[in-house]
Amino acid sequence: MPVGTQATVKALTKEDLLDCGAQIILGNTYHLFLRPGHRVVETLGGLHRFMNWDRPILTDSGGFQVFSLGDLAKIDEEGVTLKSHLDGSTHFISPEVSMEIQQALGADIAMTFDEPTPHPATHEDTLKSLLLSTRWALRCKNSHNSPDQILFGIVQGGMYKDLRSQSAEQILEIGFDGYAVGGLSVGEDKGVMLEILEHTAPLLPAGQARYLMGVGTPQDLLDGVRMGIDMFDCVMPTRNARNGTLFVPWGKLNIRNARHKTDAGPVDPDCSCYTCRYYSRAYLRHLFISNEILAMRLNSIHNIAFYQRWMANIREDIKHDRPFKQVWPDESCGTEEPDYESGV
Amino acid sequence: MPVGTQATVKALTKEDLLDCGAQIILGNTYHLFLRPGHRVVETLGGLHRFMNWDRPILTDSGGFQVFSLGDLAKIDEEGVTLKSHLDGSTHFISPEVSMEIQQALGADIAMTFDEPTPHPATHEDTLKSLLLSTRWALRCKNSHNSPDQILFGIVQGGMYKDLRSQSAEQILEIGFDGYAVGGLSVGEDKGVMLEILEHTAPLLPAGQARYLMGVGTPQDLLDGVRMGIDMFDCVMPTRNARNGTLFVPWGKLNIRNARHKTDAGPVDPDCSCYTCRYYSRAYLRHLFISNEILAMRLNSIHNIAFYQRWMANIREDIKHDRPFKQVWPDESCGTEEPDYESGV
Repeated sequence: MPVGTQATVKALTKEDLLDCGAQIILGNTYHLFLRPGHRVVETLGGLHRFMNWDRPILTDSGGFQVFSLGDLAKIDEEGVTLKSHLDGSTHFISPEVSMEIQQALGADIAMTFDEPTPHPATHEDTLKSLLLSTRWALRCKNSHNSPDQILFGIVQGGMYKDLRSQSAEQILEIGFDGYAVGGLSVGEDKGVMLEILEHTAPLLPAGQARYLMGVGTPQDLLDGVRMGIDMFDCVMPTRNARNGTLFVPWGKLNIRNARHKTDAGPVDPDCSCYTCRYYSRAYLRHLFISNEILAMRLNSIHNIAFYQRWMANIREDIKHDRPFKQVWPDESCGTEEPDYESGV
Repeated sequence: MPVGTQATVKALTKEDLLDCGAQIILGNTYHLFLRPGHRVVETLGGLHRFMNWDRPILTDSGGFQVFSLGDLAKIDEEGVTLKSHLDGSTHFISPEVSMEIQQALGADIAMTFDEPTPHPATHEDTLKSLLLSTRWALRCKNSHNSPDQILFGIVQGGMYKDLRSQSAEQILEIGFDGYAVGGLSVGEDKGVMLEILEHTAPLLPAGQARYLMGVGTPQDLLDGVRMGIDMFDCVMPTRNARNGTLFVPWGKLNIRNARHKTDAGPVDPDCSCYTCRYYSRAYLRHLFISNEILAMRLNSIHNIAFYQRWMANIREDIKHDRPFKQVWPDESCGTEEPDYESGV
């Protein structure tokens, strides 16, 4: 899922996203709650209509952003009192409020409001946090009453397998329409993440969607799917695009590089995205170096198309019951593209 | 002509421009000469191919930008020695070099390299300047040798009718494929501009294109066409768009205004541009307030579509030999839109 934090996948319209093959996007509850406000969006016909996107939208619960506020957020059993990062105004978000916001936004998939366990955390703190998350998940389930919206529960438990098991058991006991694995990719080693994921994913029902939140690199997607994950979201393709980093099957390409200055070839000769169909590396480099807005857009299109195709190829492999064909190069050498013979 | 300074009409692709009805765009020789360099563009197949625009392109001569550099530019009979505003590097542009650059870029219409007379200027200084411009225009004509490119001459003469006549006579004597009126809209009163234009336009052959450079407001377009002008260029629609100012038949609309916060209606209910077809004022305001890149794009689309339609309506009136239907409100009250009943 491309991320559309403020009711827009940055720089892109619906048509761009469809051309990239996007099927669903993510909206950020916390941001939309503060600006323009969920009641404003509701008045305007909901988030789909507001941003002109008629395919599915998943909204996060706002929890992750709220807890990222640090000292600006105060938590108790009831919920979280926070100061807006925009204007310092005070707000309160609880499980019930989060459900209300997500329903007003009109998301197709809502997420339960929980406490993302800080990392690192002791076993004791992690347990306390997951128990609070379970109580909040139950309150979300009880207050959720939108017939057009499904609700996903989130498994927490930090980096402790026994706590992941305990959380999964409690969340499954409450029962949701789909299940997410939260609290990973928060600074832990990649090996730890995979170990926890390998432990956690099989605890979730195979017949329901499994969503790994806030992940990740192309390699993470390969690993995640291998372990049974169906859905991902990450700002990586769009944020990298805005920094001039483009994803290609052989790694990452820095479009600012002087070597691209006269390169008439596309970013990836095998890519069929709008950007690769019509624009050269030389042009993209020129736009980026010149601080042109169009650079952000064309780069974002390419990266989202890359991610969508990456997942489509994985689905194809699964359909044919064969090993994944795609290999992501070791990240450490991922920024060096091989010599590339440009056309023209 | 929408202005595409750095090989892009800011934030827009070819498809956006076509949807707006654009038939021709302007590129800036000075900017492209410095970055990425006209030889780079030439190597990549010319400006059309570089920026993926297959309709006509007019390039200015670079003169206006060069003389805007002030102390960074030194002028003599041969040409102008200048320091780049990007990196301070030294360059030399003469009439011959300007022709060479514009030919390398592959513009469909090139402009002669002349000296835009400073404003205000005495009769004596203006005369000196126009005589230099005439000598340079002749050198442009003599060195221009691109069979695929037509060349326009530029009438100077500042705010003096006798000098405008003298310049027109000399430029016509050299003979060009079309003629531009330069050196207007440079800080003079609107009344002076119109008086000079009314004097100058009829001096130019009716059967060839007449182009008023760097102009202007919707009212300027009405006035200019009335006086016989066929072509205009201006950054006004795109620059205003990026500042949140949108053109509507009843004036200008500031999309940042709080009154638009919950307005589900389009910018202009009678506008059929992409932005008005799919997005509400409330959404555009939200994007702008949130510093979203998409705001620049959607606003630019609307403003360019407005300008293109403005001119299309004028052409229609001319075709039917009737008075112009369009009226532009007095600029001083142009920012107040009337009460507007939004649909939902």
